[in-house]
Amino acid sequence: MPLRLSTRTNDFAARFAELLAMKREVSEEVSQTVKAIGAEVIARGDDAVIELTARFDKLTLTPATMRVSADEIAQAIAACDARTLEALKLAAERIHSYHLRQRPRDDRFTDALGVELGYRWTAIEAVGLYVPGGTAAYPSSVLMNAIPAKVAGCPRIVMVVPAPGGVLNPLVLAAADLAGVDEVYRIGGAQAVFALAHGTATIKPVAKIMGPGNAFVAAAKRQVFGTVGIDMIAGPSEVLVIADKTANPDWIAADLLAQAEHDTAAQSLLITDDPTLGDAVVAAVERQLVTLPRADIAGTSWRDYGAVIEVANLDEAVPLADRIAAEHLEIIAEDAEGLAARIRNAGAIFLGGHTPEAIGDYVGGSNHVLPTARSARFSSGLGVLDFMKRTSLLKCGPEQLRALGPAAIALGEAEGLDAHARSVAIRMNLG
Amino acid sequence: MPLRLSTRTNDFAARFAELLAMKREVSEEVSQTVKAIGAEVIARGDDAVIELTARFDKLTLTPATMRVSADEIAQAIAACDARTLEALKLAAERIHSYHLRQRPRDDRFTDALGVELGYRWTAIEAVGLYVPGGTAAYPSSVLMNAIPAKVAGCPRIVMVVPAPGGVLNPLVLAAADLAGVDEVYRIGGAQAVFALAHGTATIKPVAKIMGPGNAFVAAAKRQVFGTVGIDMIAGPSEVLVIADKTANPDWIAADLLAQAEHDTAAQSLLITDDPTLGDAVVAAVERQLVTLPRADIAGTSWRDYGAVIEVANLDEAVPLADRIAAEHLEIIAEDAEGLAARIRNAGAIFLGGHTPEAIGDYVGGSNHVLPTARSARFSSGLGVLDFMKRTSLLKCGPEQLRALGPAAIALGEAEGLDAHARSVAIRMNLG
Repeated sequence: MPLRLSTRTNDFAARFAELLAMKREVSEEVSQTVKAIGAEVIARGDDAVIELTARFDKLTLTPATMRVSADEIAQAIAACDARTLEALKLAAERIHSYHLRQRPRDDRFTDALGVELGYRWTAIEAVGLYVPGGTAAYPSSVLMNAIPAKVAGCPRIVMVVPAPGGVLNPLVLAAADLAGVDEVYRIGGAQAVFALAHGTATIKPVAKIMGPGNAFVAAAKRQVFGTVGIDMIAGPSEVLVIADKTANPDWIAADLLAQAEHDTAAQSLLITDDPTLGDAVVAAVERQLVTLPRADIAGTSWRDYGAVIEVANLDEAVPLADRIAAEHLEIIAEDAEGLAARIRNAGAIFLGGHTPEAIGDYVGGSNHVLPTARSARFSSGLGVLDFMKRTSLLKCGPEQLRALGPAAIALGEAEGLDAHARSVAIRMNLG
Repeated sequence: MPLRLSTRTNDFAARFAELLAMKREVSEEVSQTVKAIGAEVIARGDDAVIELTARFDKLTLTPATMRVSADEIAQAIAACDARTLEALKLAAERIHSYHLRQRPRDDRFTDALGVELGYRWTAIEAVGLYVPGGTAAYPSSVLMNAIPAKVAGCPRIVMVVPAPGGVLNPLVLAAADLAGVDEVYRIGGAQAVFALAHGTATIKPVAKIMGPGNAFVAAAKRQVFGTVGIDMIAGPSEVLVIADKTANPDWIAADLLAQAEHDTAAQSLLITDDPTLGDAVVAAVERQLVTLPRADIAGTSWRDYGAVIEVANLDEAVPLADRIAAEHLEIIAEDAEGLAARIRNAGAIFLGGHTPEAIGDYVGGSNHVLPTARSARFSSGLGVLDFMKRTSLLKCGPEQLRALGPAAIALGEAEGLDAHARSVAIRMNLG
C-alpha cells in the first residue's frame, strides 16, 4: 500500500519531510571503471571503442561498420509498422512546431550614452545524443532530444546507440531520420560518451552531449563535463496529481500507474482535498494493476514510493507542490488554471482531466525531457536554448569611453587590478 | 617570450592544437576533504559551520553573529571612498538596464486542433552567491551575480563571504547592498556551500548556488549539484584579440596584460595579419610590464600561456577564433562587425579599439561572468535565465484527446509502456 498522509495530523510536517528526503536511487560507484575506459578511448580512439564494444555489446565492429549506413536506416524504416510510423511523424511535427516558438531573439541597442550593446544567440556546432539500447530505447526520446537541436540550428547532430548482439530498434532509427540526425553510430556505454567528447579517427568530437543512460553513461558524462557540455543527469521519473472531487479516480489511477511502470524507482503522488477520491484511487490502482504487463515494476514503485496526501483544501496543495517540485504535475480540479498559476516549481503542468501526462510524453508537442528528483526548483525541461549559447556584444567609441572610463578606472584600482585601469586610461591619454 | 605561431608554417596545425590542449590549471584533489566537511555540516549544521570557520578563517562566530547586520553594512558603506561608490552605482545601474532586456517572455497559444500549449518562466525561489574573501573579493562580481538574480525576480538572495580574521571588504558589502542581496553571512569555504545547499538552523537552504571560489569551493559545488543547482565551475580567464594594422599596439598590449594580471594561469592571445603589429605588441607588453604592480603574475601568464598568431588574412582568424572559443574576444580591425558576425564561439565580443575588455568587466552593462577554458563552444555568460526556470503547459479537452489519443496509444504500445497507452485509452472509452 502507498503512504497515506494528511495535513490534519500532528506529525504531517515530519512525515512529508521524510517523503521528500526518500532516496529512490542507489548510485552505483562506477567512476573508477569509467575513468579507465575514458583513458583507453582517449589514447587509442577507434581501436579502444571497437574492443570495448566487442566486450560489452558482443558486437564486432570495424571503423567502417561503426556508423549505421543510410541504407540500413532506410531498411529499418521500411520494416516499421505503418501506424506507429504515422504516430511518430505526428509527434515529430508537433514537437517541431512547439519548439520553433522557443527560438530566442538577438538583441542589439544603443543606450543614452551611445554605447552599443546586445547579445547574439548561436547554435552549438555539434551535439551528441546518447540513446540507450535494449528495452529503454525509446524513439520518442530521440525526437525530444534531436528536434530541439535541429530547431536551434545545430549543423551536426550525432547519435550513438548501443546494438547489443548487433540488434538496433528500427523505430529508433526511424525517429533519428525523422528528426534530422546527421550521423548514427552503433556504440554505447561510457566508451561512446568518451568517443563523442574527445573524438576518434571515425567520429569527430562534439561540443555537448545529451541524453539519458545507465550509471556508466552518467558517470562518463560527469567526467567529460568541461571538455564538452552535458545536459542534466536524469534521475527516476515522478508524477504529482492534484485533484478534487470533480476528478475521475480511474483516470488518476491510470496516470499514477503510467508513471510507476517506468521504473521501480519512479514515484507517483496524489494530493486531494477529497478523502473519498483518495480511497477510490487507491482501490482503482489495485484493480488496474492486475492486468498490466509491467505490473511488477509498477506495483513495486507504487508500494515503495507512492503516496496519497489528504489536504483540508487545495490552497494547502500549492506549497506542498512547490516543495515536491514534480517533474510532471497534473491538475485535475475545478480551478486547475488558478492553481497552476500559483505553483512555482514543476517541470511540466498538465491541465484538466483530459490531459493525461502520456499525451505530453508523445504527441503534445512540449518536451518530455524534464527535471527529475526535485530539480524543477532550479532547472527546466529540455528546450531549444539548451542547444544554443549567447555571446554578449559591446562597442564603445571615443566619447563613450570617455564617459565610462573614469568609473572603470576607479573600480579597477579599487580591486587592485591596475592593468585593467591602465587598459582604459591608455585610451584616454591618462595612462 | 610568448609563443609565436604563423599559419604560413608547415607545423601550424600541430602547434595550434598544442596551444589549445595546454592545461592551464592543476586540479587539486580535495574531494575527500570536502566530503568530510559536507558530512559534518549536514549532520551538525551551525555548530559544524562555526567550528570550521574558527579553524580555517580564525574567526569565532555564534549563530547570532554569523549574519552580517544591517548596521555593519551601513557602516561599511559609510567607510567606502565616495568616488569608488559612485562608480559602483553607475556599474549597478548599467548592469540592471542591460539585464532587464534579458527577461524572457511566457508563451501560451492554441493550435489548430484546439490544444492549449505554452510555457511559463518563474524565478528560482532562493539563490546563494559565493563571494571569495581576501584579494579576490571583487565588488564588481557581486553586482554581476546578484543583479541578474534580482532582475529575474528571485525573492531571496543569500550571500556568503569568508571573513578571515574577521575582516570583510567594505566595497563587497556596499555592492551587496546596491544589488539587493537579502542576507549576508560571514562564512566561506566548502562549509558555506554545504550550509547553503542543506540549510542550518540559522541559514535556510537555497535552490541554486552561484559564484566562483577556490578548489574547495568548486569541489563542494560539484558535490551538492543535484541537491541544488550550480552555475559553471569557473576556470582561468582568457582574452583573444584579433587585430589588423589599424590597431594601436600599446592599447592591445595593455589589454593582454589586463587579462594576464588576473592569474598566472590566465591566457592572452593575439591573432593578427600584420607581422609588424605582432612585433610591436610583444615589445609594448615588455615595456608596460615594468611598471605594473602585478608584474610577476602578468609576466608569468604572458610567458607561459601568451601567444601571437600570425595569419595571412583575417578570414583565417575566424575558424581559429571558433576553436579557441575565448571567454573575451576583442576585435580591433577595419571590419570588426563583419568578423564578429562570422564567429560562432566567444563568451563576449568587444568591438573596435575603444572597447577595452575592462569596460565590460565593470561598467559596460553586460555580464562579466563568462564561459572560460573553451567552454564558449557550448555555454553562455551568466544572465537572467540562469536564475529562472521554465515550466511547460499542456491542456487538452475531450476533442483534442480524441484527435491525439490514437497516436499516443500507438507510441506507448510500441515502446512497451502499456500503462501509458491505457491512461489515454481509458479517457476515450477504449480502455
